[in-house]
Amino acid sequence: MKTLVIVSHPEYHDSGTQGFLKRATEGLENVTWHYLSESEQLDITAEQKLLMQHDRIIFQFPMYWYSAPATLKKWEDDVLTRAFTFKNEKGMLAGKEFGIVTTLGYPEKDFQAGATEGFSISEILVPYRALAHRAGMKFMSPLVISQFEYMTPAEQTKLLIDYQQYLSADYPLSFNVRQDWVIKQLKKIMNDTNQTKLQLIIDQLEQNQIDLNDLKEQIKMIRQEEEG
Amino acid sequence: MKTLVIVSHPEYHDSGTQGFLKRATEGLENVTWHYLSESEQLDITAEQKLLMQHDRIIFQFPMYWYSAPATLKKWEDDVLTRAFTFKNEKGMLAGKEFGIVTTLGYPEKDFQAGATEGFSISEILVPYRALAHRAGMKFMSPLVISQFEYMTPAEQTKLLIDYQQYLSADYPLSFNVRQDWVIKQLKKIMNDTNQTKLQLIIDQLEQNQIDLNDLKEQIKMIRQEEEG
Repeated sequence: MKTLVIVSHPEYHDSGTQGFLKRATEGLENVTWHYLSESEQLDITAEQKLLMQHDRIIFQFPMYWYSAPATLKKWEDDVLTRAFTFKNEKGMLAGKEFGIVTTLGYPEKDFQAGATEGFSISEILVPYRALAHRAGMKFMSPLVISQFEYMTPAEQTKLLIDYQQYLSADYPLSFNVRQDWVIKQLKKIMNDTNQTKLQLIIDQLEQNQIDLNDLKEQIKMIRQEEEG
Repeated sequence: MKTLVIVSHPEYHDSGTQGFLKRATEGLENVTWHYLSESEQLDITAEQKLLMQHDRIIFQFPMYWYSAPATLKKWEDDVLTRAFTFKNEKGMLAGKEFGIVTTLGYPEKDFQAGATEGFSISEILVPYRALAHRAGMKFMSPLVISQFEYMTPAEQTKLLIDYQQYLSADYPLSFNVRQDWVIKQLKKIMNDTNQTKLQLIIDQLEQNQIDLNDLKEQIKMIRQEEEG
């Protein structure tokens, strides 16, 4: 399976999040990182060819007024011509998977009825869900990254694994799929000597242990309360 | 009340619909037609000043992949800075009305669950509703123009009146508001001698008569069926 990550960010070169995500793709095979520059002229035929060469298409962007920045919208308007895209015409995207990786400056809990933002991410992403519907693509639940700059190292490690899985594991991402993915990664490490990746997975396993201990602790407290 | 119509259309100068709508504004006082050219550099301060001088802001555009064309998105990204827009910061748009006039190449009935488009216009417009929410603007039900090129002259006349009311009548557009608006227009015509507008209103009244006769005919048929 080949994945195309289409990245749009007006302050791309200063973005810590995009730098982090880019590094996360470096160990992955079959992932193409495709940054859309604001100034460059679009080669529509080349863009369409790139889409056709991949099985999973990802739009990756910071949320600007509840959708992608204008550069990605321009790409959509120009590249996704009706004949190329509509599943009842040439339908060149039909059957592919379509995912969204979006970064938020606010906590995800703000995005719901009655909260600061008033609408959920699922509602806000309707235009992309409608595009998937029209093109006959399978829409993946979005990967939402909120307030990256406040993440602890453990949270960043978790994000790294989640992101790598979003790009390269089978969809839908069930527990078994995630487990298989981790085992595959470990086997690869046995063969080469990628220490950084090994460390990341060890970190992740340790984090799992911490979470598990937290849960045990909570269960113990609940029991004590019941007894007390 | 002053209304600002922000128009974005990649083929603006060839668009029959936009030409029709522009002519419809010509008789209206207190309406500013503001076409966003794709090539022109944005003067953010001037754009913000323009917004502040109006009470009703309209985004007018053909639906491109379920949202405005990239030029309007660029305008949003650049002009609607956080400090200027957020109602909990400077909130310069708070209390204003925010409307959408959008043109579709397909019948509006395609936009629903289970139909070709799968999502309703209300769902598709969530990013604009979320913007209104964040800015403290009152979101107006959109004016949706579908398949303008197939409209009969009577349907075009109705659209013209609906559009003029969307721009210049009080909101919400109840029957009474619409009635008052028509009376006001008639009075104005008594004073000047705008024959075209008079003809349009006569056409509209005639169309009402035709609709009424249709209804009467339908009621007669139902009665006959019941009796037969």
